[in-house]
Amino acid sequence: MRFEVLILGNSSATPMYERHPSSQVLNFNEQLFLIDCGEGTQMQLFRYGIKSNKISHIFISHLHGDHYLGLVGLLSSMNLSGRKSELHLYAPAALKEILDIQFKYSDTILRYDLIFHPTNSEKPEIILQTKMLTVTSFSLRHRVPTTGFRFDEGKRSASLIREKIEKLNVPTVFLSQLKRGVDCIGTDGTRYSASELTLPAPRSRSYAYCSDTRAFASYISAIQHVDLLYHETTFLHEMVDRAEETFHSTALEAAEVALQVGAGKLLMGHYSARYRDLTPLLTEAKSKFSNTHLSEEGKWYLV
Amino acid sequence: MRFEVLILGNSSATPMYERHPSSQVLNFNEQLFLIDCGEGTQMQLFRYGIKSNKISHIFISHLHGDHYLGLVGLLSSMNLSGRKSELHLYAPAALKEILDIQFKYSDTILRYDLIFHPTNSEKPEIILQTKMLTVTSFSLRHRVPTTGFRFDEGKRSASLIREKIEKLNVPTVFLSQLKRGVDCIGTDGTRYSASELTLPAPRSRSYAYCSDTRAFASYISAIQHVDLLYHETTFLHEMVDRAEETFHSTALEAAEVALQVGAGKLLMGHYSARYRDLTPLLTEAKSKFSNTHLSEEGKWYLV
Repeated sequence: MRFEVLILGNSSATPMYERHPSSQVLNFNEQLFLIDCGEGTQMQLFRYGIKSNKISHIFISHLHGDHYLGLVGLLSSMNLSGRKSELHLYAPAALKEILDIQFKYSDTILRYDLIFHPTNSEKPEIILQTKMLTVTSFSLRHRVPTTGFRFDEGKRSASLIREKIEKLNVPTVFLSQLKRGVDCIGTDGTRYSASELTLPAPRSRSYAYCSDTRAFASYISAIQHVDLLYHETTFLHEMVDRAEETFHSTALEAAEVALQVGAGKLLMGHYSARYRDLTPLLTEAKSKFSNTHLSEEGKWYLV
Repeated sequence: MRFEVLILGNSSATPMYERHPSSQVLNFNEQLFLIDCGEGTQMQLFRYGIKSNKISHIFISHLHGDHYLGLVGLLSSMNLSGRKSELHLYAPAALKEILDIQFKYSDTILRYDLIFHPTNSEKPEIILQTKMLTVTSFSLRHRVPTTGFRFDEGKRSASLIREKIEKLNVPTVFLSQLKRGVDCIGTDGTRYSASELTLPAPRSRSYAYCSDTRAFASYISAIQHVDLLYHETTFLHEMVDRAEETFHSTALEAAEVALQVGAGKLLMGHYSARYRDLTPLLTEAKSKFSNTHLSEEGKWYLV
């Protein structure tokens, strides 16, 4: 089952060197979620072959322009291209006001349902729950109300051992029960043992998005043991004063967070425009947490 | 004296095929004016080597997203990069409200003066006048209040005939007077004739921007005899019904406008996403007005 993230933008506030403001697409079992929507997101979606009308949910972390300014354009283009399916938007409450005023003056009436879910930057909340996925928002520590988002896969099924199933000619009506760990008995009295015919269910996977934030705040408890952690690394640690002042994180700090929460892998991003070459940021983070990677625009990362 | 326009975006509402929403930079004697500011304009400015802090005036035609959604990002980036010089913004009054609400929620305080000049979409108005340039806004006919902009160069000076000036060793104190057509007499009684020592002043040049609009409305009188006319050509004429319905123009109609007003040259733009290949639009317009050109992003056009 697919669970991977495409980076559309990994620049901090001033987009430079062909890097774009924050945005990414999470593909969970062919359901598409957009996380943040900086200026130019609709063009990036087009560039990387993502059909925007397949996006079902959008999550906006906070109301700094580099995280949401592409939204009005994207919502309008979805409208122009005839979108009919509903779209869920999770964002700080004030975004509704910002959208409404712009739709009012451009005389835009959306022909699809835009369902607005205000986020709570004060405490963690489960904001979406299906059998297969739970999405939680949690507080980040930035200059304006900001949340991160965590995506937890639901309990996964055991997988059948095909060769054994075929050899014993197990009736297909039993297969889903076996995957759930239930033994079955055939009409002829044959016993089919789930533990013998299946491999244990793979561990459920999780992804967390932390941008923008000062490192080490209340969010630490919310991102324990994530498999893939996208954490902003705006500055090198030599600029930690600037990071504190602007409520951002250094590469070293992000790596320390990854270490502390027991993350599987750290994905860096939200690079300051002062760094054309990102290698020093990577080197710094890897010195603390070796399974660290620079996010690259246009690239998919497995959760 | 430079008078030319750089196309940053020539797409209609849905940006596609690497075409960007409307925006252009007018360079008048090294003073930079930005006309419209669709999503991604700040990235386009960076791509084509334009220093955004050199832009002194911004003109926004109307409040459809593809003409202004890049503005908040651009203004914020100017702020982050330490802009101090004042910036004049000419736009429909409601844009002030749209900017204010976004600056409020992003907790942005501009450290430069943004001077807002509401435009009047009801009648032509001179909105900027210097010795060297007059800018006029005028009504276009679109679904929301919209203005076009006309830039008229002031009276130009005669140019000196260098060889004659040098041969007669004309005192330099006389040069500016001669350029203004005033004869001068030296201390030794020598008479320097302006008509003999100068070439006649070149004709003053003019540029008009018409996007978005239904063709043939009140604006015809405002764009008489412009040297360069940028006129939207959203559709082929076979889609004139759609053009009427959406208050846009066809390539044929734009060419008829250019012919009727006695324009020197027609520059096409605001292409619908339905046209990947733009040749049919050009062919159609040229059938009526031969000095027609497709605007290309990243290209400068002399006025």
